[in-house]
Amino acid sequence: MLRFHSLRFSSSLFAPPLPLSPVSISITKPTRLTPRMASYSTSSSSSKLLFRQLFEKESSTYTYLLADASHPEKPALLIDPVDKTVDRDLSLIQQLGLKLVYAMNTHVHADHVTGTGLIKSKVPVVKSVISKASGATADLHVEQGDKVHFGDLFLEIRATPGHTAGCITYVTGDTPDQPQPRMAFTGDALLIRGCGRTDFQGGSSEQLYKSVHSQIFTLPKDTLLYPAHDYKGFTVSTVGEELQYNPRLTKDEETFKNIMANLSLSYPKMIDIAVPANMVCGIQSKTS
Amino acid sequence: MLRFHSLRFSSSLFAPPLPLSPVSISITKPTRLTPRMASYSTSSSSSKLLFRQLFEKESSTYTYLLADASHPEKPALLIDPVDKTVDRDLSLIQQLGLKLVYAMNTHVHADHVTGTGLIKSKVPVVKSVISKASGATADLHVEQGDKVHFGDLFLEIRATPGHTAGCITYVTGDTPDQPQPRMAFTGDALLIRGCGRTDFQGGSSEQLYKSVHSQIFTLPKDTLLYPAHDYKGFTVSTVGEELQYNPRLTKDEETFKNIMANLSLSYPKMIDIAVPANMVCGIQSKTS
Repeated sequence: MLRFHSLRFSSSLFAPPLPLSPVSISITKPTRLTPRMASYSTSSSSSKLLFRQLFEKESSTYTYLLADASHPEKPALLIDPVDKTVDRDLSLIQQLGLKLVYAMNTHVHADHVTGTGLIKSKVPVVKSVISKASGATADLHVEQGDKVHFGDLFLEIRATPGHTAGCITYVTGDTPDQPQPRMAFTGDALLIRGCGRTDFQGGSSEQLYKSVHSQIFTLPKDTLLYPAHDYKGFTVSTVGEELQYNPRLTKDEETFKNIMANLSLSYPKMIDIAVPANMVCGIQSKTS
Repeated sequence: MLRFHSLRFSSSLFAPPLPLSPVSISITKPTRLTPRMASYSTSSSSSKLLFRQLFEKESSTYTYLLADASHPEKPALLIDPVDKTVDRDLSLIQQLGLKLVYAMNTHVHADHVTGTGLIKSKVPVVKSVISKASGATADLHVEQGDKVHFGDLFLEIRATPGHTAGCITYVTGDTPDQPQPRMAFTGDALLIRGCGRTDFQGGSSEQLYKSVHSQIFTLPKDTLLYPAHDYKGFTVSTVGEELQYNPRLTKDEETFKNIMANLSLSYPKMIDIAVPANMVCGIQSKTS
């Protein structure tokens, strides 16, 4: 039995006291008595939210599935579905017994084709959602301050233009009956330790800086940030982390604009296919 | 304002009642009064656990970071670190103000080189952990029923051989002060809608079947399952889901053994490099 843990001394009843180590090392064997834990309350009551983060490897896109699992209908929504993974997503939704209500996009993507149109062709009751400012076709257009309800849960819309003119961030509700901590689906406005480029599709580094600082960085520091992409294998960050460690957005506005003006990024290889398709939910469909 | 939601009628004060739709559609505009939500308790108290899932794209490996964020030392551990992403992981740990205590492996991997040895060379206080049954070199060897403590949290070891003879599953504690629902880090024993192959490294389909059914499927149904890999973009599953939908392990034992005997998988391209390296924590190091 290895025991060097400063908080747990019961093994010292059986052996001479061990020197306190700067590192907590403690492995107990099942044959030993487990000492009583210090008293504190950490049990977390389960939220109504069923949440899944899903990854599309080719474009490094995250799709998010959210549902109110405690509602009789189990209404669900997908944020930023990708055409190539629609079958995976719909199969999961079916297995989990959810009713897909919305297929929502944070913006008109330039690097992959949205799965929204394909989803609507397979599940016609699904409504597509995108920002009014995007100019894209959809069943429902949303703007700053709107709320999208699914069961007893809701997402609040925050306009976060700058990567594109129509970018929005979906944020879980601010009332105590909504998931705690809050969750923000930031699209390409704010990435983990990064942000979306601002050199096409009505992009503006000035606007992006203002969007992130006014609409995302003002959220509680423990707000979980779920971006549309990650290229390094991160899955989540927090407002507090990005406020402290985002290499671009922690800078002052002028420095940020200079950084964004000098990224020397190549022309997005999918843009000429993806953008026209994504303006009409991913497929040339009269119903979308 | 679109409002077809069966539970929320306040807008009908302003407009004729709308027909109930089988789909919950409700988007509210900020200029409208928000109706009071039905009363229920869903606020979840935050757990002590800081948790991050990290992805290595080339081998589709998940590395897991767990820490007791409420402990003064913020002791942390990594499960299945990958050599190529060690710098990313250590940078994140530093930014989050955590003290890395353990680098743990679920088994001797055949598809990538563990980051354990590299981590130890950069952070010498870190102790490597692997199962005794693996036969691999490590600072600490664990076996069925052992507990690995970090701060006031702990992981319980469950022996789940079958993919390799030394595979273990790390499961968060079963006491109320530990994360709820429980979390199981299953390595390659149980993958999301799949499982690890059983045709090398002391693998046995019979043993794997018994391991999963006796050690993982007996956990509470809401236990979150975090595998060592996913190739389809899933990040998490639950015991309940795999009990119902795992295409291999829901079968009877004979059928499972037949499936595993007829997978016709190619020889793992990394095995001759990875296995010898992983037997000594990933690098030929006298200290590991």
